[in-house]
Amino acid sequence: MPEQGKTPLRKLLRVPAGGVDLSAYDAGAKPGGPRDKKAGLAATADMGEELAGLQDRLWASSTAGDPRRVLLVLQGMDTSGKGGTVKHVIGMLHPYGTHTKAFKAPTAEEREHHFLWRIEKEVPRAGEIGTFDRSHYEDVLAVRVRELAPPEEIERRYDEINRFEQRLADDRVTLVKCFLHISYEEQRRRLLRRLDRTDKQWKFSPDDIDDRALWPAYQRAYEIALSRCNAPHAPWYLIPADRKWYRNWAVGRLLLEHMRALDPQYPKPGYDVEECRRRLLGE
Amino acid sequence: MPEQGKTPLRKLLRVPAGGVDLSAYDAGAKPGGPRDKKAGLAATADMGEELAGLQDRLWASSTAGDPRRVLLVLQGMDTSGKGGTVKHVIGMLHPYGTHTKAFKAPTAEEREHHFLWRIEKEVPRAGEIGTFDRSHYEDVLAVRVRELAPPEEIERRYDEINRFEQRLADDRVTLVKCFLHISYEEQRRRLLRRLDRTDKQWKFSPDDIDDRALWPAYQRAYEIALSRCNAPHAPWYLIPADRKWYRNWAVGRLLLEHMRALDPQYPKPGYDVEECRRRLLGE
Repeated sequence: MPEQGKTPLRKLLRVPAGGVDLSAYDAGAKPGGPRDKKAGLAATADMGEELAGLQDRLWASSTAGDPRRVLLVLQGMDTSGKGGTVKHVIGMLHPYGTHTKAFKAPTAEEREHHFLWRIEKEVPRAGEIGTFDRSHYEDVLAVRVRELAPPEEIERRYDEINRFEQRLADDRVTLVKCFLHISYEEQRRRLLRRLDRTDKQWKFSPDDIDDRALWPAYQRAYEIALSRCNAPHAPWYLIPADRKWYRNWAVGRLLLEHMRALDPQYPKPGYDVEECRRRLLGE
Repeated sequence: MPEQGKTPLRKLLRVPAGGVDLSAYDAGAKPGGPRDKKAGLAATADMGEELAGLQDRLWASSTAGDPRRVLLVLQGMDTSGKGGTVKHVIGMLHPYGTHTKAFKAPTAEEREHHFLWRIEKEVPRAGEIGTFDRSHYEDVLAVRVRELAPPEEIERRYDEINRFEQRLADDRVTLVKCFLHISYEEQRRRLLRRLDRTDKQWKFSPDDIDDRALWPAYQRAYEIALSRCNAPHAPWYLIPADRKWYRNWAVGRLLLEHMRALDPQYPKPGYDVEECRRRLLGE
């Protein structure tokens, strides 16, 4: 496959330092992407081998003390395709060395702790590629929109998130935060599709319709989070996600660019290869 | 793809109640399997869709209270292909709803607890397909061969394992225990291959050669475990594993047969589909 375009996606999709007006971003766009769906599916499949190879090297390298790991954070409105991205992108990797966590509404025990307590426990270990489907950002998104915490506490959380992510970066975690941006209309289509299919109806709840009334408030909460927690070592990427094939391609491509930059290497053997070969052959 | 043969693999590969003499089993055999490697790879790939579909139904069903889950246990000598099986079989499933755990030598903390303590924590939850790469069986295999516990304690463990697995089965865990059976010669070939490849040398340790002296003791320990912990609700399967393509096909096929027997169903919606459709369309 020829490389798509010349500009790295990590530049093209990077949320600018000044923040964003989400309504100005076309959720159906495909910046830097393949021409059409067919080319997009092929290009995504083509990434699999290189991604899995880089994952293998990252893992191997960790066995020799390399502390580096990757954390992919997926955020987006209901039906924006967080689960689908895990299936199609993370599904290309070896199950070992990946660690995927879907954060639901906090349990009673989790609510008794600091909001980062449950997050901390799921941070990937050296050599791993971790994925968060929802994350600590829910504590400044859902919690803000639904007024589940006092405003001054939510206010404090942006700084706490920034310090937490700074610490992760210091600890050699490569953060790749992706906001899957879908349109209000596309969400309606996806919800209708869930209603139409007996194998998808279980994913639907009438609450999903009620929640659509909160759409503008959520978009605003995302704009604030994307602007206030967007350090160079913990960047946000805005992924137009109305087209599933583009979304998968873009997230896969971002992961690939970050993994290539890490460029992990297989460790040199700490034993005498020739001697071991002789011993095995001479048994 | 036509079905391979008529006899279910869960009958063909089942370790008989009386136990086994491993030396009588050809690790290069392919009972019930496709004719050759090409057909085997195709047949395995063809299972992917049905397996993923059954997994989706099992998961969906759990959201409506179905407590059932699956636990695949993989055991075998070094290089027998436990990790490769995870990659090629579990890798066909959605990362959500799978839970894979590789058990290493117990940590200091784990050694302070009962040997089942760390196992218990990794048992799959309702709707999940769990995989253990090594398991509680190491506590009657490695521990027995290396004399890491008093004989009378090891003796007790077989019964403890049986009670533990009985409880899992009562708790609606479908157990599928696979012993990946390779030959002494094939292990030599695989170790030599690791030495030959710079991207595999990190997986090798000179200890792997020393351990080969323990081969007969390990085979004996496996025979004992396969005979003493082999209840109908926690069956052992003996997978000839010298051919990687057969091993993957056979484990995939066993998983498929067990999932088909579970036959999980999508839950019926607990809301009025038509009304929700009208609301969405009328927004």
